[in-house]
Amino acid sequence: MTLDTYSDIAQPADAHTVLLVLDGLGGLPDAEHSQTELEFAQTPNLDALAAEGICGLHEPVASGVTPGSGPGHLALFGYHPAKYYVGRGVLSALGVGFDLRKGDVAARGNFCTIDESGVITDRRAGRISTEKNAELCEILREIELPGAELFVQPVKEHRFLLVLRGEGLGSGVGDTDPHETGKTPLEPAPVDDASRKTADLLRRFLDEAGKRLADRKPANMALLRGFSSIPDWPSITQSYGVSGGAVAAYPMYKGVSRLLGMSVYDSDASMQSKTQLVREHWNDHNFFFVHVKKTDSHGEDGAFAEKVKIIEEVDAALPDLVGLGVDVLAVTGDHSTPAAMKAHSWHPVPALIWAKDHVIRPDEVRRFGERPCIHGSLGPRFPGSSLLPLALAHARCFDKFGA
Amino acid sequence: MTLDTYSDIAQPADAHTVLLVLDGLGGLPDAEHSQTELEFAQTPNLDALAAEGICGLHEPVASGVTPGSGPGHLALFGYHPAKYYVGRGVLSALGVGFDLRKGDVAARGNFCTIDESGVITDRRAGRISTEKNAELCEILREIELPGAELFVQPVKEHRFLLVLRGEGLGSGVGDTDPHETGKTPLEPAPVDDASRKTADLLRRFLDEAGKRLADRKPANMALLRGFSSIPDWPSITQSYGVSGGAVAAYPMYKGVSRLLGMSVYDSDASMQSKTQLVREHWNDHNFFFVHVKKTDSHGEDGAFAEKVKIIEEVDAALPDLVGLGVDVLAVTGDHSTPAAMKAHSWHPVPALIWAKDHVIRPDEVRRFGERPCIHGSLGPRFPGSSLLPLALAHARCFDKFGA
Repeated sequence: MTLDTYSDIAQPADAHTVLLVLDGLGGLPDAEHSQTELEFAQTPNLDALAAEGICGLHEPVASGVTPGSGPGHLALFGYHPAKYYVGRGVLSALGVGFDLRKGDVAARGNFCTIDESGVITDRRAGRISTEKNAELCEILREIELPGAELFVQPVKEHRFLLVLRGEGLGSGVGDTDPHETGKTPLEPAPVDDASRKTADLLRRFLDEAGKRLADRKPANMALLRGFSSIPDWPSITQSYGVSGGAVAAYPMYKGVSRLLGMSVYDSDASMQSKTQLVREHWNDHNFFFVHVKKTDSHGEDGAFAEKVKIIEEVDAALPDLVGLGVDVLAVTGDHSTPAAMKAHSWHPVPALIWAKDHVIRPDEVRRFGERPCIHGSLGPRFPGSSLLPLALAHARCFDKFGA
Repeated sequence: MTLDTYSDIAQPADAHTVLLVLDGLGGLPDAEHSQTELEFAQTPNLDALAAEGICGLHEPVASGVTPGSGPGHLALFGYHPAKYYVGRGVLSALGVGFDLRKGDVAARGNFCTIDESGVITDRRAGRISTEKNAELCEILREIELPGAELFVQPVKEHRFLLVLRGEGLGSGVGDTDPHETGKTPLEPAPVDDASRKTADLLRRFLDEAGKRLADRKPANMALLRGFSSIPDWPSITQSYGVSGGAVAAYPMYKGVSRLLGMSVYDSDASMQSKTQLVREHWNDHNFFFVHVKKTDSHGEDGAFAEKVKIIEEVDAALPDLVGLGVDVLAVTGDHSTPAAMKAHSWHPVPALIWAKDHVIRPDEVRRFGERPCIHGSLGPRFPGSSLLPLALAHARCFDKFGA
């Protein structure tokens, strides 16, 4: 089933649906715990929703695939990330909150080390500090390109964002990063006629960058990859007929929400601030995406107990959120980030759908956790992209398919 | 999700993954047993792996589809057999261990019976003996074709393999087998220009075959179908970045392994010989496919007890295999072959994935069997083609998808 199909059956709905995403929610038992973070957490409210609702675990991209934050969220909005592929340049721009516009060409940059003969000896320039990176970005930002604006913005460690803005810039340019050491950087090669101008500008930029970074070893050159522009995708409203409001604190999630035509409301990390924003904009939207970041951050830091604590805080705040009059609530993560792995992982992500009125056919799951969810009616490994359409069905957002 | 996506995220991995395939593993209760062959077997080691790992049942091709050995194995390697379709000619060649080369055109042949007017009265020539078949193949092998080498090799009963080798031979030729009696054999019809020469050679071959077999009733004619050449598919290494070693005794499995770029090591039927080969080549590969044939053979023979015995022998040999230092082990079959049916079947196939380190999120399955596996986190009916990617994820063969 494609988004087009949902778009064909979308109908106006009064009911309010909330998609609550605890980033990196899924976890693993570790050396000290026989339970996952979510299983270990005391979550009376989530458990009650699970008991009244339906549960399962989803794979955001595909079996065995560890999702990045961008693809993970696209899946949660029903945009399968293998079809709705967005380049690293655009993801980098979204990640730092850059105001990327239609037609801009964005790339992910790495500072790297080259030797006297131009051969790459370290693709990450020894992972220079973010402060050093910021200094170098200032140098690159001075480069002038004829007929185009240049933006260079530091990301983390050796990574930066490059954006070209101008008329007639295609984004079909091959990576200059050969993805291995012992080689020289590649020339920026256009893959279509529309991208010749972009490639020319990039060649100038890289020549100049090489000169200006020459004495900045280990960061004496720049590699670029993932050239991309804002994609022309259907909005959430086009896909499902809903008006969407996104409540998030971090640039990546706000950026993806904007890509899909949602209004974005800046929150802080607390559930109180998020619930307050939903309350304020209650009448502006019938769909809210509420994003909680810290579950992922603590997972990345290997902080099992802190991840548990955030889950418990969210749980405690749920009655206030649901009490706004939420008709349908979906709770899940965009991927797993087990504290035991200190990283995103491929493990399926627990999910629940709850609805206020009697359109839910409850399953037998009584607790919200990875192992209980295996036995839920959503299944132990369902495609992440079917979660939101299913939640919206419970809000009566879709008419009958066929007569 | 396509193989391309896995290929995009493949990264070098030291960990060793073993895919252990018990051919035709899945079974059924029969008149005398309330359990399946696997459920009935005493398998303490498989049960322990199931308890520590994750379990489920897969469908190699699709719901209700009974896989042949070729498609069943392609699925297990992650090559969905609906997309990675290989003609019967090539499968026949693999099945008899014929040294098929790029550009060869292979076909599956049947000896058949025709009446005086050339109408087919028996498409299988009364299932002549394999010995008779071998005699007839010698006759056909004598036929001379201008500009091409001809190979004719007996298979079983009325079936043989035909291969043409030469320059410029396309394999786009329609079956000459009309697939029903009461009709005359069809002319070999080219479906593209590249296959005209092939069709011409086949017409000569069939004219000549008709003459030479005329007095050999019931096997007085030959039908050909499934014209095909070695496909141009990505190798296991291209798809997943792993180096693969296949340990098998039978031609079909060695052939499919070779198609996918694996090194092939000839074993006998014993697990001891297979484990020894893995040990010898441990440092040459980080992925091993180990094939056990007899579970299927006994299933085909309707020999419930013998199939149970093979499963128990494999179980007893597992500690030696795992003890080599296996990091990730997947155990499954390429399809079900219930002794009660004496044939391949469409029933889902039990599967488990176990990993040495703590990247497994265990489910609640404690025994390896069809019914226990229903409740596993792999799900009761997952696509067979996702098993290997998932196993390889546990060996850290894949980087994150998207930023």
